[in-house]
Amino acid sequence: MNIIDIIIKKKNKNELTEEEIKYVVNNFVSGEIKDYQMSSLLMAIVINGMTDNEVIYLTKYMMLSGSILDLNNLTNIVDKHSTGGVGDKTTLIISPIVSSCGCKVAKMSGRGLGYTGGTIDKLEAIPGFNVNLSKEDFIKEINEIGMAITSQTEDIAIADKKIYALRDVTGTTESIPLIASSIMSKKIASGSKNLVLDIKVGEGALIKNLDDAHKLANLMIKIGKENNMKVVCLLTNMDIPLGNNIGNSLEVLEAINSLYYNPNNNLMKLCIELSSYMVKLGLNISYEEAKEKVLEVIQNKKAYNKLLEFIKYQGGDVNKLPKSRGIYEIKSDKEGYLTNLHSLELAKLSSNLGSGRKNKDDKIDYSAGIIINKNINDKTEVGDTILTLYTNKELPNIDKEKIFNIENNLKENIKLIYEVIE
Amino acid sequence: MNIIDIIIKKKNKNELTEEEIKYVVNNFVSGEIKDYQMSSLLMAIVINGMTDNEVIYLTKYMMLSGSILDLNNLTNIVDKHSTGGVGDKTTLIISPIVSSCGCKVAKMSGRGLGYTGGTIDKLEAIPGFNVNLSKEDFIKEINEIGMAITSQTEDIAIADKKIYALRDVTGTTESIPLIASSIMSKKIASGSKNLVLDIKVGEGALIKNLDDAHKLANLMIKIGKENNMKVVCLLTNMDIPLGNNIGNSLEVLEAINSLYYNPNNNLMKLCIELSSYMVKLGLNISYEEAKEKVLEVIQNKKAYNKLLEFIKYQGGDVNKLPKSRGIYEIKSDKEGYLTNLHSLELAKLSSNLGSGRKNKDDKIDYSAGIIINKNINDKTEVGDTILTLYTNKELPNIDKEKIFNIENNLKENIKLIYEVIE
Repeated sequence: MNIIDIIIKKKNKNELTEEEIKYVVNNFVSGEIKDYQMSSLLMAIVINGMTDNEVIYLTKYMMLSGSILDLNNLTNIVDKHSTGGVGDKTTLIISPIVSSCGCKVAKMSGRGLGYTGGTIDKLEAIPGFNVNLSKEDFIKEINEIGMAITSQTEDIAIADKKIYALRDVTGTTESIPLIASSIMSKKIASGSKNLVLDIKVGEGALIKNLDDAHKLANLMIKIGKENNMKVVCLLTNMDIPLGNNIGNSLEVLEAINSLYYNPNNNLMKLCIELSSYMVKLGLNISYEEAKEKVLEVIQNKKAYNKLLEFIKYQGGDVNKLPKSRGIYEIKSDKEGYLTNLHSLELAKLSSNLGSGRKNKDDKIDYSAGIIINKNINDKTEVGDTILTLYTNKELPNIDKEKIFNIENNLKENIKLIYEVIE
Repeated sequence: MNIIDIIIKKKNKNELTEEEIKYVVNNFVSGEIKDYQMSSLLMAIVINGMTDNEVIYLTKYMMLSGSILDLNNLTNIVDKHSTGGVGDKTTLIISPIVSSCGCKVAKMSGRGLGYTGGTIDKLEAIPGFNVNLSKEDFIKEINEIGMAITSQTEDIAIADKKIYALRDVTGTTESIPLIASSIMSKKIASGSKNLVLDIKVGEGALIKNLDDAHKLANLMIKIGKENNMKVVCLLTNMDIPLGNNIGNSLEVLEAINSLYYNPNNNLMKLCIELSSYMVKLGLNISYEEAKEKVLEVIQNKKAYNKLLEFIKYQGGDVNKLPKSRGIYEIKSDKEGYLTNLHSLELAKLSSNLGSGRKNKDDKIDYSAGIIINKNINDKTEVGDTILTLYTNKELPNIDKEKIFNIENNLKENIKLIYEVIE
């Protein structure tokens, strides 16, 4: 077998065999296949696609390329994954809800690259919080309090890590087969049995339209079946900022407040839906029963207390969350309705204030970020504060028009959840 | 400008601008753009193609990436290029013919990689022959005897060299835009004004069918026009071995003998046609007038003497051509007609006997090779010698059936030249 023949086969739109895909994954990890050969093959895959069988084999051998976490001794286990959004602190809200309902959440999360922090970055904003649990401590915590979150160990799905890093710099990120196999190889290797997937759809997202979202959802469900994993996909709107806070420390605060006050906003609506499907899978009950349980543990503050218990268990002290020295308000100079809040621009601004990484080894300012004081379709007067910025740096130049728009009429037809595919 | 955006643009089938192509070529040469990014872009080009304008810009900036040879002081200058064939010693036969007709042949040639030697390897088989001429000696020789052949200097079309090496190992060789720009960037940079292109068509060739050959021919002619270069393309049959000798020393001998004896075979037929179109371009006369001159210089031995004069001028001594110690005959065990001689298998066998390189730095055994004693449609009896092998190594295992077939009926409809496009 020979990588050049395999590249040409895919270039010519022919299906690769299981043996060929195994050869590619194993020899890329070992270094026999070079980056420049892999990126050529990846581009051929991006343009010509993959059959379902090819994706299933790719997932399998990426999964087998690293160590595998066996969680078979845990019952009612359930996991969630998002294809990436701005200000997405749902994991911090959902995990306590779902574990309060009797499910077990064993979550391995990543750090953020690009404009937004990952769940691990958010937890690290809490002084004392330990994100590096041993396998034994991870499972002990899940058994004792029903949930644990730790940073994904380096040795899970090693092939995926290497391929993902290459895709990032070779224009090969937007590919349904590659997205599906990347997520699923990690999830299978880290012991997931039930998975709710939040597929973000929008211009700024990896998945641009509902058609592609359907394809990804069906593929993920199929890969799940092959691996005895139940998968439910929610297709959700990328262009709506989730909640009001962006930035690591600010998002931890918002998660705690959301579970305490249960505000009637997009963030909590999405968290309730995602949680309901997770509980449905985890306890093997109906959606309606699951949703009832979810609403109950929010109302009786079980979920709120679970979040605090979890943070304390992993050593964190929420009273010591860092605060920025500089606080700046961005005000409206128009009267009307706030019709657009551009998520990606908000994320870039927050990153410039110090909350994100540009390179893998950059230091994050956990206190930096943005609070959105007016959200979509809120009435605004001249002089109203739209955004509050938190930073320890000098304020960068801000082009308001790129971040939000104020118009005379309300924006209609804003859907939060497009569809659920099971 | 940013290489990832450019890759994604081409992935999405959008046309790159002149500025973007310039950026890619210059930054790949400087090392800013990495091999793994370039190979991803190359695969997107292979699959999605390029517009004529994109190819013209790519040719231009590859040509400008190295030094440029100015041959404007030479008149009646003409060049030939082949897209690559087995046992192709046409340059050694054609150059003396064409220069004997009054044209000037200033040829920069390459070494072979893969199974067959390049023209430079063949000339180096002649003891004493100097293939590394200074620019001054190169032009002096052309002025004095009408022709010169030297190895292509490292600094011609540097971008093409780097891209070509990458294409070779990333499955991105088969692409009409990339083949056209690669050939033309080198030809323009090395001062060509009139070019006859021998486009080999066949299963084993870069160009698999006549449809692609037409596209390549029309593209080459268009690039030529943009650069004040006249281009004529001959579409020829790749699957017919040209002449009877394969291997460096053996091919030099065959070139000399062909000009002396003028045998009525495929090799001389093709050489006469290619020469006629070269003389037509070089002297700006009709094809008929040109062909008359070509036949005359062959018949009156002017071309034969020119070849000997040229070899002597560059220091070579044809009486000292190396000979192999081992000579082996492959005989027929069937009666019938020789219907197939598989060029690629012959080339592989010759390479195994010592005549080719597997890696760039391998040493060639100039004496090794094959003489084809029976050619296509020759009658063969049991015990007739079909091939004679020359080598200084042990004889490898030989699977006759893979190399030639003997059948009861003659093979019909074998075309040497499919078409001429001007």
